[in-house]
Amino acid sequence: MRVLSGIQPSGSLHLGNYFGMMRRMIDYQENSELFCFLVNYHALTSVFDADRLRRQTFEAACDFLALGLDPDKSVFWVQSDVPEVTELTWLLSNITGMGLLERCHSYKDKTAKGIPASHGLFAYPVLMAADILLFGGEKVPVGKDQKQHLEVARDIAVRFNNVYGETFVVPEPDIAGDVALVPGIDGQKMSKSYDNTIEIFADEKTLRKKVMSIKTDSTPVDEPKPLEGNVLFDLYALFLDERERETLKERFLTPGLKYGEVKKELFGVIYEYFAPYRQERERLARDKQYVLETMQNGARKAREAASTYLERARHNVGLDYRSI
Amino acid sequence: MRVLSGIQPSGSLHLGNYFGMMRRMIDYQENSELFCFLVNYHALTSVFDADRLRRQTFEAACDFLALGLDPDKSVFWVQSDVPEVTELTWLLSNITGMGLLERCHSYKDKTAKGIPASHGLFAYPVLMAADILLFGGEKVPVGKDQKQHLEVARDIAVRFNNVYGETFVVPEPDIAGDVALVPGIDGQKMSKSYDNTIEIFADEKTLRKKVMSIKTDSTPVDEPKPLEGNVLFDLYALFLDERERETLKERFLTPGLKYGEVKKELFGVIYEYFAPYRQERERLARDKQYVLETMQNGARKAREAASTYLERARHNVGLDYRSI
Repeated sequence: MRVLSGIQPSGSLHLGNYFGMMRRMIDYQENSELFCFLVNYHALTSVFDADRLRRQTFEAACDFLALGLDPDKSVFWVQSDVPEVTELTWLLSNITGMGLLERCHSYKDKTAKGIPASHGLFAYPVLMAADILLFGGEKVPVGKDQKQHLEVARDIAVRFNNVYGETFVVPEPDIAGDVALVPGIDGQKMSKSYDNTIEIFADEKTLRKKVMSIKTDSTPVDEPKPLEGNVLFDLYALFLDERERETLKERFLTPGLKYGEVKKELFGVIYEYFAPYRQERERLARDKQYVLETMQNGARKAREAASTYLERARHNVGLDYRSI
Repeated sequence: MRVLSGIQPSGSLHLGNYFGMMRRMIDYQENSELFCFLVNYHALTSVFDADRLRRQTFEAACDFLALGLDPDKSVFWVQSDVPEVTELTWLLSNITGMGLLERCHSYKDKTAKGIPASHGLFAYPVLMAADILLFGGEKVPVGKDQKQHLEVARDIAVRFNNVYGETFVVPEPDIAGDVALVPGIDGQKMSKSYDNTIEIFADEKTLRKKVMSIKTDSTPVDEPKPLEGNVLFDLYALFLDERERETLKERFLTPGLKYGEVKKELFGVIYEYFAPYRQERERLARDKQYVLETMQNGARKAREAASTYLERARHNVGLDYRSI
């Protein structure tokens, strides 16, 4: 089973990314053929600062490698190192109805929020379809926000196969069921856009400050603490196994627990938990050569996988005039 | 001066193509740096028959080479042999406003005529802009129908340079002023869509039939023939120099001229005129290997020219994370 996942290189990873996505990636890596790539072409729809994009792309590569994405067990590359995906985007465009793209919520939502309506933003789902179809992705883990785009990719694959003959695998979505919901420090979903994140690789001082500012309720110390909607409890629980979670539950239900102390404790847990990753992250950031070579090797493997589908598509639409 | 011209590989060339476009190409080839390519990516917006596209691409290559496009004096290639153009298309898309594309007449006209509104048809002007900007085209010969698309390409170039810093040459249109107007056999502009064409490489019988069916007026034989709007005169004149044209004029103004005989004569003139080209055309069609190698060499030269602009664009948008 080939699993495909494109990830925006959009700056520092936070707990929401880690428990929502990174963990899944590691699972896929063990149980299937994982194709994972940093979508810097897609990032161009919103990042117009070249230095920032370069830096974020390199840093995302370091983050993922440090957190356990294993380039021997998976194919891991930077999207723009396999530019063939843009050629496939054009081939797909010609059988993609405008209505299909006009119905996409994501484009409508973004432009409604005042983001300039660029053609890149509009064509985003076609590039995403190419991302998937170029590598014969069978399963694509998607969040709710990307579900419609995956349906577009499926429609495009089916239509292409109908118009030009069997060419592509029609991908299936893998909608996360049991993914941990990670609240931000204010209780909303943890997300960069809410400015409520806890960064995995933040320095000690920043991390402590973030953890200490987790929103808590005003239950007096000598009363049992509520568990429902308790952000501090939910965040702490992410780091515990089932037995440890039961113990934490009891502590919260026992009068006398001080939120401030639990926060200090949680800070320590988070810091400890990511310590080995942080160390590896620092090592990678220093060994630029290794990271670049790793990404280059990944691109080579990705390109090899792509060539099957691209050659077939080029033939089926009639670009290979040399073969007449 | 670098002149850029993309040509649809859309089947048999006719006199309108030859006198309207081919002649200009040959002039450019002598006086400037001509980059000329067969736009099979663009053709995909309307041709969904792979065999037909393959054949037409190869045949267009033979036609142009036979008619005097000299691969040593110009850069001549097939668009899809330099797929980098699709990567640039994506880079341009992100700074191309939707409004700019929505205002394009060509898309509106085509969909109004019932052609399905595909994303390829809509994005056509962005690919065309990439065609031009990728090779640093300074001058682009355009007909009236492509004038707006060239303005879009200019807008895109200016905007890209503004957003990301100086990257592209802003191309100038070269709107044909003194191009011969070539009437079809029914008197309308010669065009495949009017089914009134005289094909350059038609076989003798077909060519004769076409010429004999040129529309003429009913002026009696023993009267002077009108010159204004006289399709037969206009078509004949294409093959004459100024002095010969004066002689033809006198013959038309002298009573006694029989249209039927002039037609027979014109058939002979056309057949003779294209005889050496026809011979060369047949030779090329037999020497497939030579044609393919020629196109491959052209693509190599085109790719070399493209790399300057593509590398600069990739750097300026921030795809080159390796350089950090």
